[in-house]
Amino acid sequence: MKKALAIDVGGTKIYSTIINPKGEIIGDIEKFHTPKTFVEIKALFNEIISKHEKDVDVIAFATCGAVNNSNDGILGSTGNIAKEYPTMDFKSLSTKPVFVENDANAAAWAEHIIGSSKGMPYSIMLTLGTGVGGGIILNNKLYKGKNGAAGEMHFKMRTDKHRKCTCGSWDCFEAYASGTGLKKTAEEISGESDITTYDVIDNKDRPIMKKILETWQNDILEGIIGLANIFDPDCIVLSGSMAEFVDIECLEKEANKQIVTTPFKIVKASAGNYSGMIGAALLALGE
Amino acid sequence: MKKALAIDVGGTKIYSTIINPKGEIIGDIEKFHTPKTFVEIKALFNEIISKHEKDVDVIAFATCGAVNNSNDGILGSTGNIAKEYPTMDFKSLSTKPVFVENDANAAAWAEHIIGSSKGMPYSIMLTLGTGVGGGIILNNKLYKGKNGAAGEMHFKMRTDKHRKCTCGSWDCFEAYASGTGLKKTAEEISGESDITTYDVIDNKDRPIMKKILETWQNDILEGIIGLANIFDPDCIVLSGSMAEFVDIECLEKEANKQIVTTPFKIVKASAGNYSGMIGAALLALGE
Repeated sequence: MKKALAIDVGGTKIYSTIINPKGEIIGDIEKFHTPKTFVEIKALFNEIISKHEKDVDVIAFATCGAVNNSNDGILGSTGNIAKEYPTMDFKSLSTKPVFVENDANAAAWAEHIIGSSKGMPYSIMLTLGTGVGGGIILNNKLYKGKNGAAGEMHFKMRTDKHRKCTCGSWDCFEAYASGTGLKKTAEEISGESDITTYDVIDNKDRPIMKKILETWQNDILEGIIGLANIFDPDCIVLSGSMAEFVDIECLEKEANKQIVTTPFKIVKASAGNYSGMIGAALLALGE
Repeated sequence: MKKALAIDVGGTKIYSTIINPKGEIIGDIEKFHTPKTFVEIKALFNEIISKHEKDVDVIAFATCGAVNNSNDGILGSTGNIAKEYPTMDFKSLSTKPVFVENDANAAAWAEHIIGSSKGMPYSIMLTLGTGVGGGIILNNKLYKGKNGAAGEMHFKMRTDKHRKCTCGSWDCFEAYASGTGLKKTAEEISGESDITTYDVIDNKDRPIMKKILETWQNDILEGIIGLANIFDPDCIVLSGSMAEFVDIECLEKEANKQIVTTPFKIVKASAGNYSGMIGAALLALGE
């Protein structure tokens, strides 16, 4: 059975492990802090790859940043990682085939093959964490758009330049539905600038915290309604650390009342914390 | 050369003509008022078809309403046409093959094959009229979603239940970007309830009318930014009676400044007023 060395590259952590074509993790999970400079990141990739490449058939990267349609390079900038990172020549890192995919896309693929959206041809994954990641599966294929950058959940929630988004524009879904968005909503409703997402979640029975969470969840609902009307999907998968604070049943019921397309499901991701590596490995192995 | 009898079914008018595989109109354009009842609509279809079917190879409908993925029936309700219309058994109308597609989807396909988005694999058409229609072409194929209902431009522009949408929900793109949306925006900004879109357009040099048009165009911009971030398309095509009042050059420049995906074009539709019939005919003829 073939094997992939999977490497997940985030702005703060890098993970690696070995994965088989069933999406099973069959090696140790190795964990590293993401080095500050391009040279150090490349050195770490070389170290991981030289240690494992003899035992695997392909190298599969799940990385932050949009990945091109030939799955060998990064498009544009990637936020909080060394600014030269997008110039990485991934193919040159190994004599084995190297495959690169965006982490959110890879995670959506893992859900599609072994997780919550298995058997459903049309699904959209929303990863609710510090930011919001997106991965779109259409007709059983990962949707990447003309250059590979598709699936950015930066559509507007309002048009009056109310809340700045990390993307440089204003009022994107990410600025409301993310953990950072919840904190901003909490600040706006409570009038307190030092309120945290933990304050809200740990005190969710207090009326003001309840109102904050409901406002945040309603923003997620409104975004999901738009996606369902645009895509007519089988399901929307919610993943990421913030997904556990969403009342999925309530969201699904309310969204299905408001859409003009056909009924769809909202489900929680089930492929686990390493779904980025699993999805990249499955794609790299042709699964 | 094969020929299609094309029939365009709208809530107020029904058109028919003959179209060849190049998308050329080779018959007279016949025009009818849409009858009030299901029985009368069916009788009109029979009349049109019996007159022309001997001269054509297929019957191609471009119709209001979402059309299923087998292109032979309508999903759900269709607004201002006889309420039994979605039960129409299109295949039974002729001994020749009958093909049905949603009018906005068909028009998007016409643009893709013979119009402004020709040669571009990824395009989204927005038809700005009384409402807003949408048609999505991905990887040179019409995108329909799991049941055929995709491409509904009912994503939210705000989340505070400000403006009711025709779909029953609130604050959809259609409620702002359409002609009806421009009238509502004009009412809100001017404080006058009897202001019309013509008042705005005919007096667009007056500061208040300028402000109304700019607000309306900014809503279109915000919606387009979201679609470009979700789809990473080659282009967005604007069609419909309201499209001529949009400053496309300005929209394209501003949208490309704000997106996180890759540069895209905004173009005006060029396949003409009968693009729905042309697109349906091209699809029915396998073009």
